[in-house]
Amino acid sequence: MAGARFASQFRTYLIMAEHSLWRLSRALQCAVNDRHFEDLADLLDEDVDWAIYGPIDMFPFLGARQGKAAVVEAVRQLAHSLRIRRFERETVMLDRDGAASMVRCLLTARDSEKPITTRFAHFAQFRAGKLIRLRVLVDTFDLVEQTLGRPIHLPRIGSFA
Amino acid sequence: MAGARFASQFRTYLIMAEHSLWRLSRALQCAVNDRHFEDLADLLDEDVDWAIYGPIDMFPFLGARQGKAAVVEAVRQLAHSLRIRRFERETVMLDRDGAASMVRCLLTARDSEKPITTRFAHFAQFRAGKLIRLRVLVDTFDLVEQTLGRPIHLPRIGSFA
Repeated sequence: MAGARFASQFRTYLIMAEHSLWRLSRALQCAVNDRHFEDLADLLDEDVDWAIYGPIDMFPFLGARQGKAAVVEAVRQLAHSLRIRRFERETVMLDRDGAASMVRCLLTARDSEKPITTRFAHFAQFRAGKLIRLRVLVDTFDLVEQTLGRPIHLPRIGSFA
Repeated sequence: MAGARFASQFRTYLIMAEHSLWRLSRALQCAVNDRHFEDLADLLDEDVDWAIYGPIDMFPFLGARQGKAAVVEAVRQLAHSLRIRRFERETVMLDRDGAASMVRCLLTARDSEKPITTRFAHFAQFRAGKLIRLRVLVDTFDLVEQTLGRPIHLPRIGSFA
């Protein structure tokens, strides 16, 4: 009994000690890859303020969303187009209720099975273990070129006015 | 005398207390706008590891640089093309030797006097007050479109394979 109680307390400690970022990251991958949205919804504050900056004409699941339902719907749209193969975290900063990281993200386009590798940076803020604010910046030009499957010709800055 | 000593100690305290990020930010603006590179060089570790991800065909001052001289040269190239009007910091995380922030950056293209507004995220690591590692992610597609001065037509993801 004492052993069981200790194990239970230790498990509680582990749960308490784990930063909300890791739970969010797992829930997001589970939502995108397996289309199980319950864990993700459970980690979102009702009034979550969410923005992934990028060209919404090409990627309609990017952009700003307010509130849990709108965010789950955006992730559902993303899951329709992409699958996450792996997150490679290059830099991480954590404090009690905040997290920032830069991540190399290996994706697959669901329609073509084409691999896409992109880099993003995010800043997440949590309250009582729920996500209340997310800002994500993506290396969007690289993402667009990979999704198109061809380079976009660019002039050199200064060679036009 | 006591007053002077106190003032001097207080100044020392202020210098010690200020996070290296703010000094780096001022030095960078001074380098880009006034082409004074001494303060910036002074804040860079000899072996600084520096990368700003983005299309180097259009912006040759982006990309990876190793060491102080190479970084100063890249900032010199940047200063040739752009002027910084303002940094608007949207999110900041600091710890003792690290800093991450997301910044809305108001620039002017020097050749055309055209205003450019872009968003970037950076992760900086310092040692003994000197920058040893910098990673910057830019919302590059938006930056490219603004620099071109025209939108790039994009198909919607899923409408091609």
